[in-house]
Formats: sequence, structure tokens, C-alpha cells
Amino acid sequence: MRKILISFLLAAIAASTTGQPERPAVVSPEICDNNTVTFRLHAPDASTVSVAGSWMEEWGATVQLVKGEEDIHEITVGPLPSEMYTYTFIVNGVRAIDPNNPTAVRDGRRNESMFIVPGEKGDLYSTGAGPRGTLKKVWYPSPSLGMDRRMYVYTPPGYDTSGDSYPVLYLLHGGGGDEDAWTTLGRAPQIMDNLIAAGRAKPMIVVMTNGNPGQAVAQNEPLAGSVKREQSPAAGMAGGRFERSLVEDVIPFIEKHYRIDARPQSRAVAGLSMGGIQTMSLSFTYPEKFDWYGIMSMGLVDMTRFGIEDDYETRKQRLGNLRNTNPSLYWIACGTEDFLYNSVVELIAFLDSQDFPHTYVETGGGHTWDRWRLYLSELAPLLFR
Amino acid sequence: MRKILISFLLAAIAASTTGQPERPAVVSPEICDNNTVTFRLHAPDASTVSVAGSWMEEWGATVQLVKGEEDIHEITVGPLPSEMYTYTFIVNGVRAIDPNNPTAVRDGRRNESMFIVPGEKGDLYSTGAGPRGTLKKVWYPSPSLGMDRRMYVYTPPGYDTSGDSYPVLYLLHGGGGDEDAWTTLGRAPQIMDNLIAAGRAKPMIVVMTNGNPGQAVAQNEPLAGSVKREQSPAAGMAGGRFERSLVEDVIPFIEKHYRIDARPQSRAVAGLSMGGIQTMSLSFTYPEKFDWYGIMSMGLVDMTRFGIEDDYETRKQRLGNLRNTNPSLYWIACGTEDFLYNSVVELIAFLDSQDFPHTYVETGGGHTWDRWRLYLSELAPLLFR
Repeated sequence: MRKILISFLLAAIAASTTGQPERPAVVSPEICDNNTVTFRLHAPDASTVSVAGSWMEEWGATVQLVKGEEDIHEITVGPLPSEMYTYTFIVNGVRAIDPNNPTAVRDGRRNESMFIVPGEKGDLYSTGAGPRGTLKKVWYPSPSLGMDRRMYVYTPPGYDTSGDSYPVLYLLHGGGGDEDAWTTLGRAPQIMDNLIAAGRAKPMIVVMTNGNPGQAVAQNEPLAGSVKREQSPAAGMAGGRFERSLVEDVIPFIEKHYRIDARPQSRAVAGLSMGGIQTMSLSFTYPEKFDWYGIMSMGLVDMTRFGIEDDYETRKQRLGNLRNTNPSLYWIACGTEDFLYNSVVELIAFLDSQDFPHTYVETGGGHTWDRWRLYLSELAPLLFR
Repeated sequence: MRKILISFLLAAIAASTTGQPERPAVVSPEICDNNTVTFRLHAPDASTVSVAGSWMEEWGATVQLVKGEEDIHEITVGPLPSEMYTYTFIVNGVRAIDPNNPTAVRDGRRNESMFIVPGEKGDLYSTGAGPRGTLKKVWYPSPSLGMDRRMYVYTPPGYDTSGDSYPVLYLLHGGGGDEDAWTTLGRAPQIMDNLIAAGRAKPMIVVMTNGNPGQAVAQNEPLAGSVKREQSPAAGMAGGRFERSLVEDVIPFIEKHYRIDARPQSRAVAGLSMGGIQTMSLSFTYPEKFDWYGIMSMGLVDMTRFGIEDDYETRKQRLGNLRNTNPSLYWIACGTEDFLYNSVVELIAFLDSQDFPHTYVETGGGHTWDRWRLYLSELAPLLFR
């Protein structure tokens, strides 16, 4: 009987089929007890190695790693607050994810390395010890857009056995994103699991659609020759087509295939940036459909540019219609450093001028995912109470 | 009313929050009509840029890109047969995924860029135009391993509305992999969708577990401080613990939560490499549980090294027990260039010596994912007939 040494077997089986010969991996990133983070890269032939990360205040900033023993470039940053961070190395001017970090996430067309600094927020965004819900990649027909499309459906712990009907949060991404965004950068399944386990949010279903009406599925998904190619994500704000597809296609599909409490008071919609425009547009165009609204990092912009009829009188009238439905929550959140902050100030002023009840949460920070994870974890506990 | 130009708004919203300033993206990879593939990288400050890809015959091979106009390094390879390929650039000696390709997949600890060359196989591995099933990330309790664990469950098109009960294929990954592998590198959901749509495979549920019994969830998934850390993937072959957990924990969970035809003749198990050992081990240890077996790129190795009692007489006796259950299919596939090919030759000789009915498919190729995608697409049509 042929004997094969387990060490050889495992090494050979585990080895990838491409790439240059291996050396012992360096540890990167290394998160220390004091929440400093050390990045390392073995790069004997690189003249400069820098890192660009989401903890840096200035957009486009980088920090150079210092070459030390055994050709390992190294830098320590922080201490960093507990949070999820993304970063890339820049090797002689070329962006490169950290080859020693298996965890990467996609942000639009880019892939970046990712790590989480433990602590209150980091734990909220990580897989916790409590019960976990199920995340489903679901294809559904969208007659209003003339194609089959993909979305994610999160069902909370207990859904498969309880027999209960559940409220639903429709959760919308921003421009440049797609249906993946809230499950990767947004950590929505982990946030919901952890909030529900702590008794801080009611068990709910979360539906994460693709908000680009020309796009069947995330742009990183290979399609067979016979399948319609995706169109420009810029179509996302065009003429309310996504909003119509949500109301006419998505909601009926969800209410047919899942155990849903289908009353408007058990239906919420929230979105960031482009998804915030879509949330406002839904509140104005289909005010009877939803009872809970969350608008993140987006305020009043000139909607006519997106093919949506929009002047002051029309807006006033639509807000009046919305008021007649007496929504349980019209919740708005923005960071003071957000480039859209002024548009949010205008939105709040408009709502105030019309005595329209709303909740406004102003935070620090800009137009970034650390805000949107925070906003989801603050909004979800308020819903369906 | 503040006016914001749509172009500025979209560009700003879509821009990532980290990284150096942008220039117009180059197209990479570009797949031409004749199936040549061109790779490009803008790298003014890099002295060497190479590419290592899964189409290269020799392990560790690379091809250097040539610097041309506007500091764009470029190389054209192929024509390549229709297939899914992974690759990385090597920039001054450092591995870097292609920053212009949004599609990346993880292979163990590595992330690599990915593309599909269209044609018969490429289309089989891509999202097709036919109905698509649903892919679910499911957490389940594993009392036999003392932890909650994650797996993927594929339910075929029609599952949500048919009311039928379905047969199940338990599909196992190899060493160094985890529950992600068959859904990313393996393209199992796309293969099943396309085979079912073409009438080539029966609609079935496919369960893809994590075969490393010390590991709760794939190694790229951040865990909160309160959750058990993963252990070495080498534990995968130790003492049949995974096999026991599949039979005692996974199968009962699946049969409780899904509409399953729970007879052994509607239960199949198949796996590659380490998963092939586990499949053989299941066939010998729990011969009454399954009726259909698929062993990919794995043959007779010294099982005692994995804590499994194994001598010639024991093996003969176990094969006799297995024969008594009269399995409908004992299917083995291997490539002639596989480093485990000789072990498969030994397995076939052993089965022949015992007059044990089996099907052996010998192909070209080695110990690589192009083989395992092919084997799944050849095995699935045979099941549950």
C-alpha cells in the first residue's frame, strides 16, 4: 500500500494552483491588545510600499511602510477605535490587497482587504455567539424592469421554526453599489443577529435589493452569453423605475414566498445616499405602502435631474399626502462632514417649515460605511415598536 | 434650492473612501472574440509586472507583461479554452489582484482575480438565462462537534412553490478549503441551475458543509471576541469527526428544515481530495446512509494516518458491508496528471479485486478546480435516476 505522508499530502492539497513559490507567511494585519494595528508585507523587490485605509481622515491619504529585517515592510497605526476597516497596499504605485489577509470585501469595482478591531462596535459587526439568522441569495422575476433579478433576504433566528409572521425592512444601497453592499460592507446580517440576540431589535426580515434598475445582478457575477449584460449604475435614480419595481415586483414576491405581516405598519424602507433618494421618492410616491422610513446621508437634491417631477409646490403637496398616512417614523441621519450635509440641513428645514414630524440624528463623520453601519444599528431598534 | 450636478453627485457617491487618486481605468482582462485574453495594468513606477494564472501548465509559472504607451503594462495570452480562470499579478515581486477586475474569489487564504472565457463550459459555470435556485447561508447546531457551524444550502428552482420532497447531494470540499469553496471556485449553484434547466440533472438540494471539524465558519469571516476561534484545517481528516457530524448533526437538521425525500436512495455524498477521503470514509462507516457516492481526485491512502482504523482485511470487510447495501453508484474520477493519480489507480485495482461495482472516469488534468467543476457537471446528471 502506497504511503503518503500527511504533511506532504495536506500541504500539497492546500496549495493553490497558481502563483510563485511560497515562503512562510508574515502576520498582517496584526491587531494588538491596545488596538494598534501592524501591517506587514514581504517585498524584497519593491522600492515603496504604502497603505491606504478607511481610518484615514483625508481621502486619498497613504502612509508608507518601512523596510526592515528579512525584506519585510512594516508600519503600525493607531490605536484605532473599535470598528470595521478596509485598506489596500500600494506597491510601487499599484494597488494590491494584503496577500496575507484572507478577508477581503468588494466596494463597487474595487476589492479591499478588511479587518475588525474588537470592542463594542467591532463585536456588533462580527458574527456573535447568539443565534444567527439565514441569508439567502434569491432570484425573482421583475416584470416592471423586464428581467429576472437577484436580491438578498435575511430571515431572523427562529424564522424556520416559529410559524410567526414577520415585519420587513427593505434596505437600499448607494450609488456604485449593488445588492451585495449591505451584506459585505454593511454587515447587516451580523448587526441584525446581534441586535435581536440582545433584545434590542424586534425579529424582522431584511430585504436587500439591487437599486440599479438596469442591472440584474452585482457586477462581479459572471453571466452566460445568453443573459442580458448589466447597464450603467447611473440608471439608479432615473425616473423612479427602481421604486416602482420594489413596490410592484419585490414586495409581492416577498409576501408570497415568506411568512410576512403584510400590513403597512409592519413595512419599513431605509437607504443610504442614492438609496436615501429612493427612500424619499418611495415616501412621496407610494405613501400608503410603508409606515417606517430611514434616510441616511441624503437630503434635498434637485430631483428633476433624476427624471422625477419636483418643484416646491409639488413637494409640499406630496409631503401633505405623506402626512395623511401618519407614518410612525421618518428618520434621517447624517454626518456633519458629509459632502451632502447641506442637502440634509435643507431637508430638515423643509420638514420643519411644513410641521412634518421627523427624527433627525446628526453625527460626526462623512459619507462612509462606518456611518451607515452605525445608522442601521441605531435605526433597527426603533422599528415596529 | 441647492442644485447638485448629477455627474458630480454620482461620481462622488460612487467613489471609494480609500486609495490614491483615480485615473481612467484600463480594461483588464479583455476577452476577445477569438478567446485570447489581454491583461493590462497602469504601473508607471513598477519595474516588473507578471501574471500567474490557472491556465498555466506549470505550477508557479509566470509571464511578464510588457510596458507600453502611457505606462500600461500589457500581455495577451491564449486563445484559452472556454473555462473559469483565476490569476494574480505580481508587481515587483508582490502578489496583487487585478485592480481593474471587480471579480475576485478566495482560494483558501488567497484572494485571486477571476474571469470566465465564454463557450460551453464557461456558460455552464456562469449565471444562465434559465430559472435559478436559491443559495442560503445557514447556521446549524453541531452537538457532536460542540459548536454552531455554518453551511450553504442550495435549493433548486421551484422548491419554494412545488410542495415536492427533494433528494439531497452532500458536497464536500478539499483540504485548505471551507464551506465557501463549492459556491465560489466550484460554481456549484450555477452548474446545478444550468443542468436542471437543460433537463440534464434532476432537481435536488445541494448541501455544502465545512469539512474542517475544528472550524465553525470560513476563515475569512470575522468573529466576535465571545466566539470560538477556528482551529487548524488539518483537523479535517482526524478520526472521522467530520463524518460523524455530517450523519448525526447535518442530515437530521436538513431533513427537519427542508422538504426532503429522506430515503437513502435519495441521498448522495461526493467530495474532492480531502472530501474524497471523507466520502470513502462515510461509505465504509455509514454504508446504510447513502446510496450514491462520488470520489474526486482521491484514492487509497493510508487512512491510519488520519486516525481511521485501516488495514487490508478491515478494508475488505468494510467494502463487503458496503456491497451488502447495493449502492446505486460508486463513482470515481481523477486526472492522469493528478499527484494523487497513483492512489486512484490503487483504489480501482482494489475495487476490481473485490468485484465491487464502480464507475471510473479518467480525464486529463491535475489536482485543480477545473477538474472538480467538470466532475460535478458529469456526476450530477447520474444521480437519483
